[in-house]
Parts: sequence; C-alpha cells; structure tokens
Amino acid sequence: MARKSGSHAGITGPRVRDAAERLFARHGYAAVSMRQIAAEVGVQAGALYLYTRDKQSLLFDLMQSHLRDLMQAWQAVPEGDGPAARLEAFTRFHIRHHLARPDAVFIAYMELRSLEPENFKVIEALRKRYEDVLEEILRDGAAAGVFTVPDTKLATMALIAMLTGVNTWYRDSGRLSRDRVEDLYCDMVRRAVGA
Amino acid sequence: MARKSGSHAGITGPRVRDAAERLFARHGYAAVSMRQIAAEVGVQAGALYLYTRDKQSLLFDLMQSHLRDLMQAWQAVPEGDGPAARLEAFTRFHIRHHLARPDAVFIAYMELRSLEPENFKVIEALRKRYEDVLEEILRDGAAAGVFTVPDTKLATMALIAMLTGVNTWYRDSGRLSRDRVEDLYCDMVRRAVGA
Repeated sequence: MARKSGSHAGITGPRVRDAAERLFARHGYAAVSMRQIAAEVGVQAGALYLYTRDKQSLLFDLMQSHLRDLMQAWQAVPEGDGPAARLEAFTRFHIRHHLARPDAVFIAYMELRSLEPENFKVIEALRKRYEDVLEEILRDGAAAGVFTVPDTKLATMALIAMLTGVNTWYRDSGRLSRDRVEDLYCDMVRRAVGA
Repeated sequence: MARKSGSHAGITGPRVRDAAERLFARHGYAAVSMRQIAAEVGVQAGALYLYTRDKQSLLFDLMQSHLRDLMQAWQAVPEGDGPAARLEAFTRFHIRHHLARPDAVFIAYMELRSLEPENFKVIEALRKRYEDVLEEILRDGAAAGVFTVPDTKLATMALIAMLTGVNTWYRDSGRLSRDRVEDLYCDMVRRAVGA
C-alpha cells in the first residue's frame, strides 16, 4: 500500500522495530514501556502510535516477521539431493540464520509467555511450519531407509533445540569458526539420525 | 545453623523464593517488583527484607540453589559402569530433573542477562561444573574408543541444549510418557556420539 507522502514510516518503522527488539531482548517484554522504546528511537511516545497499535502488536510483529523471514530464507536455500544432503543443508542453514539474529531468536523463544492467546496461535502455527520442514526431511530419510528415526516428531524437536542452542554459547572470538561449528553439528546430526 | 526461635525464616524463606521464582518465570526479572513478590507471599513489602537483601540477591539465590541442587542430585545417581552406561544415566537424569522444575530452568537460562557481573561469574562457574560432568563422560568414552566425538566441548553444549529442550515442548497430557521420552533421547544421544 502506498504511504502518505511525508510519512517516515519507511524509515522509522524499522527503527521502532529494532529498538523494541533490542529492549525486549535485554530487559524482557513486560519490563519495557512504549515510552522507553520511543526514547530509544528518539521520538515522542505519541509518535510511536503512528507505527504500531500497542506494545503487544510490536511483539507479535517481531515474532511473526522473524518466523516468516526464517521460512523465506529457507526456501531460498538450494534443495539438497536426497535426505542426507537436505538434512545437512537444513543444519547449516539453521545455525547460520539463528547466529545472525540473536535478539530475534531470544525473543521468539522467551516471550511466547507474553503473547495474547490469538497471537500465540498464529506464532505457534508459523513455528510449526518450520518444524515441519525438518520433520519431512526426517520422514523421507526414514522411509528411504537411510535414517533411523523411531519418532520423527520428537527427533525434530530434539535437533532444533540442539541447533538453536549454538546461540547460547557461540562467540566469534572463541576457538571455533562458524564454518567449523557447522561441520561439527552436521556430523552429530547425521549420526543422531543413524545416517 | 540453628534459627532464632520465633523466626519464620524457615517457613517464609521458601515461600519468598517460590513466589519470586513463579513471578520471574512468568513476567521476567526486570518486570517484577519486591512489592509484587511480597503481595504474592502475603506479607508487607518491608518484611521481605528479613529474608533477602534485594531482588538481585533473590535471583542469584534462585539460580545458585538450582545449580547446586542439580549437582547434588546428580551425585546421588548411581554411577553407571562404563561411558555408555554413564551417558545413559546422565541423559535420563537431566531430562527428569529439568522436567520437574520448569520455572527454575527457565530462569536459569533466561535471566543470565539480569545477573550483576560478580553473580554472573559464580553462576557460570557452577554451570560449568555441571557441563564438565558430561564432558568427562564424553572424553572417557572417546579415550576408550567407544564414542566418536571430535570435539567434546562442543558435543557437551549440543547435547545439553538438546536435552534441556524437552522442557519447551513436553506435556504430560501429550502422546508420550516421560519414560518413553527418556528412552528415545537415550537412543539419539547414544547415536550422536557414535556409540
């Protein structure tokens, strides 16, 4: 939709979201006020309402865009040939994508408690779509007899937790490069599914 | 140490901690006031200071006891015979122990951001002691030639994240019993380390 000329939504919108993301990640959603977000952006509190209905909408928007971006980014990854290659592509993609946006990931996991019920449903459905990507790879691999996965749903949750966990300990200043971390996780994931 | 007769610290102390844990887990540390904690316990705000110096001390105490209990509970688990049995014992213990105290686990991971630097150091050291338990099992297994683990430190972080992740999705009302979940994770963990 065309924006009213003179509107700064195209510039301030992202700045509002960035500020909210940063503050929610640092202090937690419940502790952050719209006034603080406005101060972080450098606008009057009233001006925020040009960009968002309220704090809940901001949180919901952040989580929704995070999960939509995630699916879109995954869809741009070249499809591997066969379940093992697809699993490796997924593993590398997941680690890389999540390491690049720690605040968004932190919020997406930690602030589920802060979503209103209707918003929670939408977010859960989007998250489920992403989990389904991995589950389908595991199911295909099991069906082809190249993976041993007695419970694909549980294995999906286990592997996603394992991969997302990289965000909690990885530091670029540490002893391992991102590429090396990806390699080592690919190895463990492959073995975990018996490939 | 004997308590002063007439002191209610033995009764109210745990109630203060329970209330703080519940509120921190639900709203996040930064959003909870000492006044709210007092109201949850059913005492005047001033009375809280008989039990804790301030909110930061409460958070630190909660995390410290959580990690101390974890180590103590692990030390009470019968030591398995050989790396594979020890790894299975660790896997079952970790899942069971963490599923039983979701609020403490959530806080222990999510509120690291809220610890003052000195407190953070203490908590990190305690957490490291627990990680060392698993890393030692992995190293022993690798040294004995029964595990294939190219990087024991990374594998430790990966497996702990995988196991703690059960807390985010497991529901007692779901299709899998806790025992079944433990079995399936033991299977994946064993395979992940090439045993």
